[in-house]
Amino acid sequence: MEIIRTPRIMRDTSKGHILRGKNIGFVPTMGSLHEGHLSLVRRARQENDIAVVSIFVNPVQFGPSEDFNRYPRDVEGDTEKLVKEDIDILFMPDITAMYTEDFSTYVEVEKISEKLCGVFRPGHFKGVTTVVAKLFNIVTPTRAYFGQKDYQQCVVIKKLVKDLDMDIYIVVCPTIREKDGLAMSSRNAYLDSTQRAASTVIYRCLTEASEMIKSGIIDFGHIKKVMHERISKEPVVSGIDYVGIYDPSTLDELSGIKDEVLPAAAIWIGNTRLIDNMLVKT
Amino acid sequence: MEIIRTPRIMRDTSKGHILRGKNIGFVPTMGSLHEGHLSLVRRARQENDIAVVSIFVNPVQFGPSEDFNRYPRDVEGDTEKLVKEDIDILFMPDITAMYTEDFSTYVEVEKISEKLCGVFRPGHFKGVTTVVAKLFNIVTPTRAYFGQKDYQQCVVIKKLVKDLDMDIYIVVCPTIREKDGLAMSSRNAYLDSTQRAASTVIYRCLTEASEMIKSGIIDFGHIKKVMHERISKEPVVSGIDYVGIYDPSTLDELSGIKDEVLPAAAIWIGNTRLIDNMLVKT
Repeated sequence: MEIIRTPRIMRDTSKGHILRGKNIGFVPTMGSLHEGHLSLVRRARQENDIAVVSIFVNPVQFGPSEDFNRYPRDVEGDTEKLVKEDIDILFMPDITAMYTEDFSTYVEVEKISEKLCGVFRPGHFKGVTTVVAKLFNIVTPTRAYFGQKDYQQCVVIKKLVKDLDMDIYIVVCPTIREKDGLAMSSRNAYLDSTQRAASTVIYRCLTEASEMIKSGIIDFGHIKKVMHERISKEPVVSGIDYVGIYDPSTLDELSGIKDEVLPAAAIWIGNTRLIDNMLVKT
Repeated sequence: MEIIRTPRIMRDTSKGHILRGKNIGFVPTMGSLHEGHLSLVRRARQENDIAVVSIFVNPVQFGPSEDFNRYPRDVEGDTEKLVKEDIDILFMPDITAMYTEDFSTYVEVEKISEKLCGVFRPGHFKGVTTVVAKLFNIVTPTRAYFGQKDYQQCVVIKKLVKDLDMDIYIVVCPTIREKDGLAMSSRNAYLDSTQRAASTVIYRCLTEASEMIKSGIIDFGHIKKVMHERISKEPVVSGIDYVGIYDPSTLDELSGIKDEVLPAAAIWIGNTRLIDNMLVKT
């Protein structure tokens, strides 16, 4: 596995592969890799000639009061995992290589990024789309892989690619869960054992909602109330950003049935923000 | 010359050329081509295997009270000129192909785009950088050519390319002028004969400023006053957006000398806004 730290070298390396007729699969990550990431990595490995993974904790997508500094980092462990997965290139740029002192260009997907998490994390998706646009221009992938756990991020990035005419196919991969149902996330590492045990509430709540929908209940107001109550009753929950049933395309809250619906939630356990969602065909 | 109207076909055509090892020179225009455009076109033709010119009057870069509707259009004349210049591809997309109904992604170069023209045309450069990012992703040029007449646009686009890690070389070409000095612009067509005769005031004013600077005068406040007076005295001038001597890198107004300085002005003659600038080595 080649480790590249400079955008220019990464770009030239990708260019060389493309000119030799190779396609490139790309998994952009913030590191601290878990089985969720690795499922994307394996798919990128299978479906492409060249597999590239980036590790870059992007300061621009964290709010001033958010967890940029304490975000988990494990370069050594990550590198080992990627070598085992037979990845060709690990791209690991420095912050100063990605953002020069006078950096001032931003890419923003308006509207859809202002909903759900966008309400509670202003500027977050602007940071995501800016760094993803940069990474896409540097790595020039044929396909890029994202996890469904960050459902809104997937929708926003698909819109970015479509609106800016980027020649990249976005592959959304299923959420990988712990045995007890908790969606894998680097932020799970913040939870102490009591919090960790109770954190499955978000999975249980979404599963219950999914089952109610599948059973034919169409009173989404009622289902939302049940979801909200289940989460509120859990003592370790310190806050609810949102919980409900949403339109998978527009991310608007649904009042009535559609072919496919998205129960989703964002909650706080102590100082840790957790999100999860499920796509339900009705 | 091949005429392409669909972003997808343009992108696939460019991809084919790149995979065959060809480089691509690109001149994005809003049509109504004059000798200024043609100087860029010729350079693109000379320096690249494949020369692509786009004609697209981009609605997003016009303010609500600006001249989008009356902006001059001459597809037939333009096509004829480009055939004569031996251009390979004319890319001429429809508005609906560039902006779908739910389009919502914008690229913005902050700070530098808020100065000079940015003060008077809010949103203008956001529209420019968005369409240029799209066109760059569609055409994937090796080199793209812009005229120095739109000096701020050149600076903004260079910043866009640098900040978003686009693999494109931006070539800035000298301003082409009418015999009497007026910088060529599609908007010159708006001027009636009285206005046209008097419109050289902007050239005369910039030339005078340049000569004062070259002669060693370093009191830029004084030079600015002279420039302002010269323009104000011209009866057809209906307004001055800005006039002065600026830093070619930061576009800030200069109070003292630098290696290279930029006398520049934006004025109104009737309902026509004209801009011009000169780079002066001191």
